Amino acid sequence: MNTFGRLFRVSIFGESHGKGVGILLDGVPAGLPLLPEDFQADLARRKSGAKGTTPRREDDIALIKSSVFNDKTTGAPLLILFENKNQDSSAYDLIKDKPRPGHADFTALQKFGGFNDYRGGGHFSGRITLGLVAAGVVAKKLLGTVRIIATILEAGGNEWIAENVERAVAEGDSIGAILECRATGLPVGLGEPFFDAVESLLSHIIFAIPGIRGIEFGAGFASARMKGSACNDPILDANGTTATNHAGGINGGITNGNELYFRVAAKPTSSISKEQTTINLQTGEQTSLVVKGRHDACFALRLPVVIEAATAIVLADLMLLEQNLSRVVR
Amino acid sequence: MNTFGRLFRVSIFGESHGKGVGILLDGVPAGLPLLPEDFQADLARRKSGAKGTTPRREDDIALIKSSVFNDKTTGAPLLILFENKNQDSSAYDLIKDKPRPGHADFTALQKFGGFNDYRGGGHFSGRITLGLVAAGVVAKKLLGTVRIIATILEAGGNEWIAENVERAVAEGDSIGAILECRATGLPVGLGEPFFDAVESLLSHIIFAIPGIRGIEFGAGFASARMKGSACNDPILDANGTTATNHAGGINGGITNGNELYFRVAAKPTSSISKEQTTINLQTGEQTSLVVKGRHDACFALRLPVVIEAATAIVLADLMLLEQNLSRVVR
Amino acid sequence: MNTFGRLFRVSIFGESHGKGVGILLDGVPAGLPLLPEDFQADLARRKSGAKGTTPRREDDIALIKSSVFNDKTTGAPLLILFENKNQDSSAYDLIKDKPRPGHADFTALQKFGGFNDYRGGGHFSGRITLGLVAAGVVAKKLLGTVRIIATILEAGGNEWIAENVERAVAEGDSIGAILECRATGLPVGLGEPFFDAVESLLSHIIFAIPGIRGIEFGAGFASARMKGSACNDPILDANGTTATNHAGGINGGITNGNELYFRVAAKPTSSISKEQTTINLQTGEQTSLVVKGRHDACFALRLPVVIEAATAIVLADLMLLEQNLSRVVR
Amino acid sequence: MNTFGRLFRVSIFGESHGKGVGILLDGVPAGLPLLPEDFQADLARRKSGAKGTTPRREDDIALIKSSVFNDKTTGAPLLILFENKNQDSSAYDLIKDKPRPGHADFTALQKFGGFNDYRGGGHFSGRITLGLVAAGVVAKKLLGTVRIIATILEAGGNEWIAENVERAVAEGDSIGAILECRATGLPVGLGEPFFDAVESLLSHIIFAIPGIRGIEFGAGFASARMKGSACNDPILDANGTTATNHAGGINGGITNGNELYFRVAAKPTSSISKEQTTINLQTGEQTSLVVKGRHDACFALRLPVVIEAATAIVLADLMLLEQNLSRVVR
Repeated sequence: MNTFGRLFRVSIFGESHGKGVGILLDGVPAGLPLLPEDFQADLARRKSGAKGTTPRREDDIALIKSSVFNDKTTGAPLLILFENKNQDSSAYDLIKDKPRPGHADFTALQKFGGFNDYRGGGHFSGRITLGLVAAGVVAKKLLGTVRIIATILEAGGNEWIAENVERAVAEGDSIGAILECRATGLPVGLGEPFFDAVESLLSHIIFAIPGIRGIEFGAGFASARMKGSACNDPILDANGTTATNHAGGINGGITNGNELYFRVAAKPTSSISKEQTTINLQTGEQTSLVVKGRHDACFALRLPVVIEAATAIVLADLMLLEQNLSRVVR
Repeated sequence: MNTFGRLFRVSIFGESHGKGVGILLDGVPAGLPLLPEDFQADLARRKSGAKGTTPRREDDIALIKSSVFNDKTTGAPLLILFENKNQDSSAYDLIKDKPRPGHADFTALQKFGGFNDYRGGGHFSGRITLGLVAAGVVAKKLLGTVRIIATILEAGGNEWIAENVERAVAEGDSIGAILECRATGLPVGLGEPFFDAVESLLSHIIFAIPGIRGIEFGAGFASARMKGSACNDPILDANGTTATNHAGGINGGITNGNELYFRVAAKPTSSISKEQTTINLQTGEQTSLVVKGRHDACFALRLPVVIEAATAIVLADLMLLEQNLSRVVR
Repeated sequence: MNTFGRLFRVSIFGESHGKGVGILLDGVPAGLPLLPEDFQADLARRKSGAKGTTPRREDDIALIKSSVFNDKTTGAPLLILFENKNQDSSAYDLIKDKPRPGHADFTALQKFGGFNDYRGGGHFSGRITLGLVAAGVVAKKLLGTVRIIATILEAGGNEWIAENVERAVAEGDSIGAILECRATGLPVGLGEPFFDAVESLLSHIIFAIPGIRGIEFGAGFASARMKGSACNDPILDANGTTATNHAGGINGGITNGNELYFRVAAKPTSSISKEQTTINLQTGEQTSLVVKGRHDACFALRLPVVIEAATAIVLADLMLLEQNLSRVVR
Repeated sequence: MNTFGRLFRVSIFGESHGKGVGILLDGVPAGLPLLPEDFQADLARRKSGAKGTTPRREDDIALIKSSVFNDKTTGAPLLILFENKNQDSSAYDLIKDKPRPGHADFTALQKFGGFNDYRGGGHFSGRITLGLVAAGVVAKKLLGTVRIIATILEAGGNEWIAENVERAVAEGDSIGAILECRATGLPVGLGEPFFDAVESLLSHIIFAIPGIRGIEFGAGFASARMKGSACNDPILDANGTTATNHAGGINGGITNGNELYFRVAAKPTSSISKEQTTINLQTGEQTSLVVKGRHDACFALRLPVVIEAATAIVLADLMLLEQNLSRVVR
């Protein structure tokens, strides 16, 4: 299903080397000021060109195709389209028969009977996160004073990120990273019991981002090695302020008013120019592959704004749900 | 939303100390043999009584209330109810005003305006996973030769699990655990692009289980510290068999035919008999709390069958989706 | 899909001659007073025993299995179960091989490969509307001063309803009816553009009721024979009060503050004791059938409370959606 | 919610006088041949220009923005966009303060706090059905040998349609119509029990089309005046062939293999050039209104292809569901 969310609903579409990518947003309240330039700052953060990201220059202009009238949202579904330009598909003819290790090439081919658009990963490309970033811009506007900030904690195994990237580029290799996202200013009560726990919704959308391999909330995996007496966060006041925050701001799947935070593991970019072993699907024989084309040595460098967007989408949806006057009969 | 799934849909209900808990299943194919005793083995695995689990004796008899006729499913919605017995609510009057650290007491109270059933955690109790286990029994029947096995890798920080549990019981404290789940026999092609990636769906349901704090697929967080040349799994043959399996059997959110595996972090049980700091909501003053009642020193001991059930629910849904003849026009 | 609704969600289950029927409600606000006796008045209106309805005595006691604590809803999913008693299945062995004309016997058998519970229509029985009536009781409580009243306009072709029913009983035949439902006190603005128009949602749930064959809103089919100048309702004041109400209180799929009304056509009961032609599925030969067992000569006599319930379910869901503070940014 | 469908999912967007209108399709199988010219025949049928339809010339070129690769669908979400051209918004400034009787002007304004795009009805315009027609083209391709044909039975009260339209144009008035839709070649077994009955799904989408006021299946309202012995369709053979077809090809919400048919009532076009009474929202006073701009005297003339499309969308979704191999365990 290409759709996510309950009141604030995002539907994604597009391919890396097709006509474009984008997002259709349903449930955006009416009267929200929205201009094309509102997207620029976050799109720039996601943009390629930095050391360790691909040289492909993406214009990434958000074309608002519906729902905005007199510079404000109308309450109708909002389509944001990014046209593809500057793509070079020549390097991809190769891939058709030689699935890249670590990529969706093989699984997409099998699942869609060979009809998938394999160029640049097609619908499985990281480029599709452009729509997510655009949705995040709208979502952030709905979040008022809530602040969401994602950062890279480490890349290539430690915090010397720039050096590690440079070395990977030089080697024709790639590196992964661990990121952290923190949200402050949240009310108590976001999230639904059981299936729509905050962690369930956040992990659902975060794992939709290509290349994510793990997520942990609060103390995460470390909490599995703590005793309850150390892990439980003492409650200090009637607002629910806690002395520690091993819970990452969530109890029972519901925000407790403390800072929400989680960490995410991004694997190294799968496309590398080092020689790899794969199969030639035409011949059925093993073969070696050197991926050409333009690729990030560390795609995680682009991820902070994507993770913020994903987080904002979930929190905006939950805030809309919670602002419902009839949650509790009074 | 109390519902999860697309074709195989599970809707959960119930409270720890109310009339019962259970699950309503929609989309179960007709003609599936199903008897009350089919649930016994998995319910027994989840049962309390083991060292480190609560002494509350739960009968846990699955009452099939609809859809089974002549010992086979009819294709109509299937209700499975577990009646609550033997519960002792006396210890919970305390909690009403003194939210337990690490629990949903405070957030549930705030979210539902004080109307939540606070006894034993109410709808937030781990007892609600009974319904999930029952759904898992049905889901496993749909999975044919697929095998799903979850195990505890470590509890209390290492593999000396029994000792760690005993020590925690003696100290009135609790410990967490790390679990692993492996599924073999999966076809290539389960999972949907982007929002319904296999990892998205699995993490969504896994984080619905009370007390889960982290999840990682394949090499997980470790992959963030690998180079692409090491992390990518070389493809060996036209079936997609890979030399290594750092991807955990998933590429681009879609199963690749290799073993699917992931690890999960469970925090230590929040209810401990050691003295803790919390707030008295009546007075607004800090106070100390000693949680009485019957609790697991390591609730994770019950989790393997719950995690298997959650996994089976997701995989059954995806297999039903994939068995759709019209996925590809031929 | 056995579920309907977006914020106020109803999931139905059960069979006529199985263990029971019922409904699972999600999204019920916390703090709503709810007692088993609250269901009695509406259940009594639906009950059999009246002239023209079956002599089967149904106890129809609403068993609240979850979510009510201290006589108020908790905000968790609410399960209401009706146990089946007093059913006599002996007459149905016949049906297994001889599908009743006008019934779901043939289609259910084909769809579910012969595994459906055919006794009394199984999951296709009108008895399943018990759950709908129960959900309607809860929904009506959420609607505040909104009043919904459904009445029978005619049965058997005219308003001499009692006489027509008696004659049908005497003849071993059955009659249909036309009903009307009116809702007053609605705010302007319920309903969503396009797919979730008020008429879309109401007709969706109304046609779920077994035996409904048509629905029309406001002037309905008659409006197809009016000129625009006669059909358009002149707007008289800033509240949207109109001089006529051919629109039935709905413009563009959204309530306009005037009375909402629609009419519904119910076919004659399919089960009749007159001889009918059908097929013997064992032999493949045509055969005659006389349906025995207990049946309504005019099941529509029970429908007013069912139609009110269905209407209340839709309106409660839309009111919850509309009470969302963030529909419009202010 | 701007989305409809379960496996074949359509999400609509756009405004009459904005940048464009269109549809996003999810669940389209891979490998379906699809060219821009495939849309032309159905778009032409919907097109304006005929007697009784508006002189606004619409180019209506379907721009395929995603999912088609080498002239075949890829299995990824498919976006079809129609750019708006040639619109004349000048006549609509008037409407802002004077809601047109029979239109969504008043309700849209109230619901969206005045932020709705009121030009040409905005998101409530009949122009949005362009996307539906495009989705119908794709859906029809999935239906194989199923044939769907919608026709106008009468307009302006009888079958002299052309004359009635001319007279309405001359009078500055408008007329409504009754349409019929028939589908042949359907298998037994489409439709789900209770909430997703075929009639529920069809009426849901049909009432989404602006201006529809009633729907009846098979004998419809007339069946309410028949006796059961006359209304029940005798079953003639093991394929379920019936001697009559009062059921319209549906029993218990499930197709029975006979022809499916239903009738729809379309009201007269609300926009007329005759003087009407409305309110001036600026002054709060009653006022008269003469609607200028380009309008259909009988918008129902465009509806057959729209109703076919809506029907095809529902049937394609149900056929995908039914082609699922695991409906019945074998």
